Amino acid sequence: MPLLVVGSVALDSIFTPFGETADALGGSAVYFSVAASLLAPVKVVGVIGSDYPVHELDQLAKRGIDWTGVERAEGESFRWKGKYSYDLQSRETLETRLGVFASFRPKLPPGWDQSRYIFLGNIDPELQLDVLRQIHRPDLVVCDTMNYWIQGKRLELLKLLERVDILLVNDTEARELSSLWNIHKAGRWILKHGPKRVVIKQGEHGAIMMDAERTFYVPAFPLEDVFDPTGAGDAFAGGFMGYLARVDSTAPEQMRRAMVYGATMGSFAVEAFGVRGFESIDPTAVERRVQAFVDLTHVPVAEPLR
Amino acid sequence: MPLLVVGSVALDSIFTPFGETADALGGSAVYFSVAASLLAPVKVVGVIGSDYPVHELDQLAKRGIDWTGVERAEGESFRWKGKYSYDLQSRETLETRLGVFASFRPKLPPGWDQSRYIFLGNIDPELQLDVLRQIHRPDLVVCDTMNYWIQGKRLELLKLLERVDILLVNDTEARELSSLWNIHKAGRWILKHGPKRVVIKQGEHGAIMMDAERTFYVPAFPLEDVFDPTGAGDAFAGGFMGYLARVDSTAPEQMRRAMVYGATMGSFAVEAFGVRGFESIDPTAVERRVQAFVDLTHVPVAEPLR
Repeated sequence: MPLLVVGSVALDSIFTPFGETADALGGSAVYFSVAASLLAPVKVVGVIGSDYPVHELDQLAKRGIDWTGVERAEGESFRWKGKYSYDLQSRETLETRLGVFASFRPKLPPGWDQSRYIFLGNIDPELQLDVLRQIHRPDLVVCDTMNYWIQGKRLELLKLLERVDILLVNDTEARELSSLWNIHKAGRWILKHGPKRVVIKQGEHGAIMMDAERTFYVPAFPLEDVFDPTGAGDAFAGGFMGYLARVDSTAPEQMRRAMVYGATMGSFAVEAFGVRGFESIDPTAVERRVQAFVDLTHVPVAEPLR
Repeated sequence: MPLLVVGSVALDSIFTPFGETADALGGSAVYFSVAASLLAPVKVVGVIGSDYPVHELDQLAKRGIDWTGVERAEGESFRWKGKYSYDLQSRETLETRLGVFASFRPKLPPGWDQSRYIFLGNIDPELQLDVLRQIHRPDLVVCDTMNYWIQGKRLELLKLLERVDILLVNDTEARELSSLWNIHKAGRWILKHGPKRVVIKQGEHGAIMMDAERTFYVPAFPLEDVFDPTGAGDAFAGGFMGYLARVDSTAPEQMRRAMVYGATMGSFAVEAFGVRGFESIDPTAVERRVQAFVDLTHVPVAEPLR
């Protein structure tokens, strides 16, 4: 089952203690698609400027990513420049230039309104709502957001939450949205505002998924070397959605497995600079790491003590 | 199978945003024993001063805790006074008075040298080694330590590590001991210095157990309200060791279940002030939470994707 994603297609310049990149492929829709396409075909809606290295997108198209929904506008592409601290625990944004992204209005190519698995990447909640209005009858709508919209477009965001199935955010965003420090209370708050489920990513501390009855937890993969956390959250979303589109199901037990595929893609993302971490990953490598994740928390069954 | 623990028996004065206690039962051996005794009989080796509320220990004896190895010395008991930050993420030690603990020399009552499950709580590594010399032929020796000994008695601590089966510490201690920031690298370093296994507690982010081949991860319980983190690490150790003594096994699959019992006891510890959280806990409540823990990370089995 194909997957529709709307989000940013950007050029990233990243500085970490282990190296740097300049004007490399980045943006939420790119990380998402590179990860998700290991599991299901992906259709991308976004915008690039006239300076974007289109041949690099063409390369990625071979992986099963359809870029025909990415508009080519006159002007500069979206650029982000960031620098990580020595321990990769924090990052500073050095520069954000929206370029053509500032006037982006998502338009779905013909037939794409029939898409059933939708990921609304981190863009203006008004645009996210606008995309939803163009979709015929989706099976699953998952959205992301960020502090910028939580602060600046709170009402629009709350309106959007009423129309999505799952909110997928990081812990800082969940706390800011709910004004609650405790992550489980923050999740509970979100569940009261529309979504049937919430996924809260906690970086090196894994991710939780909550619905009204149950909580599921997946750890981060025990990596001894982390090179670049950029895009890990989007890759997580790509693995999560890619798995659900692949098995074409929104059943609760599949949601749990989807979390493991999300964590798997997140772990691949941080092992190399930019999207390059995915170049060498094939379905066998994905399955191997999924199994390693399952082993990581596997508790052998035993009779209860008495 | 009974369990032997050596550690501090103290009087704690704790300030949290939700309340405070003064001169309440505390210390590593007390938290450990209260948790472990839900699973197996516990024998305690320690020291108290002439001012200690012995009747409160007598109360706890009914739970299966044998205090006959706790020496009663002339002078003041070990006292600790601490204050937690608003979000319970950090704490400040306001006062530490060692009292009779300063000249403590552990002495095992007759017959206790036959103990097979040994927990060396956080005391001077020289005293921990001294206890080991008194033990006949243990099946399992687990030890804890703290920054104070890592800095002040490094050589003695490294000598101790060569003689223990498992080092059980928190993430800060693992980092300080190994001088490595990455927790998995820190664990690997520890495994090279003697112990066959290492358990690293990460507070609200759960705990990991590593041996040469595999890593196991147990999350913290998703609690919406945390009242007092004091003693959670010792209660974790009590649950871990209590389970292994109960099933009388050191098999790898039992070690994984022991981690879940550890996390279970840690979660009970933080739900109330001091050791009181355990007053209302019975074996049924323990099994119920263990099951909830197992559900929290349970990944439904599926065929690999192809």
